[in-house]
Amino acid sequence: MAVKEGDFIRLEYTGKVQETGNVFDTTDENVAEEAGIKLDAKTYGAIPIVVGGGHVLKGLDEALVGMKEGEEKKVDITPEEGFGLRDPKLLQLIPMGEFKKQGMKPEVGMAITSDGTTGIIRSVSGGRVRVDFNHELAGKNLEYDIKVIKVIDDDVEKIKSMIELHYTAPNIDSEKHDIQIIDGVVKIAMDEMAKFDKKPYMDITFARFRIARDIWENMENIEKVEFVDVFEKKVEEAAEAAEIAEEVIAEEALEEAVEKVEAEEIAEEVLPEEEKKE
Amino acid sequence: MAVKEGDFIRLEYTGKVQETGNVFDTTDENVAEEAGIKLDAKTYGAIPIVVGGGHVLKGLDEALVGMKEGEEKKVDITPEEGFGLRDPKLLQLIPMGEFKKQGMKPEVGMAITSDGTTGIIRSVSGGRVRVDFNHELAGKNLEYDIKVIKVIDDDVEKIKSMIELHYTAPNIDSEKHDIQIIDGVVKIAMDEMAKFDKKPYMDITFARFRIARDIWENMENIEKVEFVDVFEKKVEEAAEAAEIAEEVIAEEALEEAVEKVEAEEIAEEVLPEEEKKE
Repeated sequence: MAVKEGDFIRLEYTGKVQETGNVFDTTDENVAEEAGIKLDAKTYGAIPIVVGGGHVLKGLDEALVGMKEGEEKKVDITPEEGFGLRDPKLLQLIPMGEFKKQGMKPEVGMAITSDGTTGIIRSVSGGRVRVDFNHELAGKNLEYDIKVIKVIDDDVEKIKSMIELHYTAPNIDSEKHDIQIIDGVVKIAMDEMAKFDKKPYMDITFARFRIARDIWENMENIEKVEFVDVFEKKVEEAAEAAEIAEEVIAEEALEEAVEKVEAEEIAEEVLPEEEKKE
Repeated sequence: MAVKEGDFIRLEYTGKVQETGNVFDTTDENVAEEAGIKLDAKTYGAIPIVVGGGHVLKGLDEALVGMKEGEEKKVDITPEEGFGLRDPKLLQLIPMGEFKKQGMKPEVGMAITSDGTTGIIRSVSGGRVRVDFNHELAGKNLEYDIKVIKVIDDDVEKIKSMIELHYTAPNIDSEKHDIQIIDGVVKIAMDEMAKFDKKPYMDITFARFRIARDIWENMENIEKVEFVDVFEKKVEEAAEAAEIAEEVIAEEALEEAVEKVEAEEIAEEVLPEEEKKE
């Protein structure tokens, strides 16, 4: 059956810049390695998305409609459908003095951050530094190879796929989520380990909202999504869970700095389109 | 009816050092002000506790049994029942060189922190600094004035009182918690604002575990406590909640540093006995 808007699917893709053939994003580990963009912390393989849900570039969402499970396709994406046109106002001239104040020696190709946005130094001459704050892929024609690996039919699997997409936490086992759908209410009790996440609760709330929204917008007759943290009067189990958590936390502490950077990279790499949309 | 172990009550207290008469902790704002220990961020007034629940010093838990609603009492607390005896091993000699290495000039009365514990410099002489890592109130005989303001009978109010005790978050309105007790399961949906807490999820989990434990240990026939975050397909309301949250967050950002320090102070001041127990 052909894929339609609102379908939950697993998608493989590789995105290249048309002009250069350079791969900038892929779900394939080998392709990433060859292109020199492999991230150790990233989990490669098909990612779950909702077709038309804005999880991928608009041009890809449109191309997916009508494809069949297992089908592959090449998709050309214009800058307008991709990362936008280049904005001349984002090409800025900065006096050399600004860099000197901060003890920096500007060089062509160097990335700098200002007010949270990243720019690339394009030229240095006559006491002026030209910095390009446009998205690296703005103005580029792109080419994607996409493959619909699976159309997800089962309701519980649909819900799990959205948790997988929005809730990038290590140590969480998708098999351990307890998901019930009763009278239009989805009740999600996540893997016990999720309770020991060190991220701010507010961030968890935003992730949960995205999961809930994707569920009620794309699954029929769902009006409410509840995330439930259960505490039971079984002292041994609770103690055991706490112990596991302690171990995990100790391990994590070692890699904490690394993980933080990697998590940000994952967020940028796996979900560039989503981040862009929001 | 006389107060018994397991009762949920609201308690007023003022604790003094017997020897000096110095007030070190109180629920009374005026008394705190007079004693020069008033904290702006602390909410004064009777605090909710479970009698025998370890929320106050053991000596107080024992003294409360048999008191009546509205009754006042003076309670003497020995060091053993209070903050422990003084441990000579916690009086340490530290070479002056250690302080110099860190660019510190030790002076008598100065507080220093080492491995997360705080010590007071007692003397500086002959190249050696004597630091006392005993609790400030260790070895002291204490005197408490206590008053049982209210015995909480209603089950929902009992649950709310434990949320109030363990969940010290600003902007949360106790009236807005939705609490249901069905077939031995307590289902708690907290005030919407709780979702926007910036504390790590793990800390929230620990607070929830304490609330759950106090409930099932002191309320009959409760085996399970569920904390539920509900997301409903009412876009307007969600947007509104997000907007309120944005405002609150903006306000908070200004005071963030202040708040953090104050929150720690509250934690230490309001709940010294609980912290000590755990």
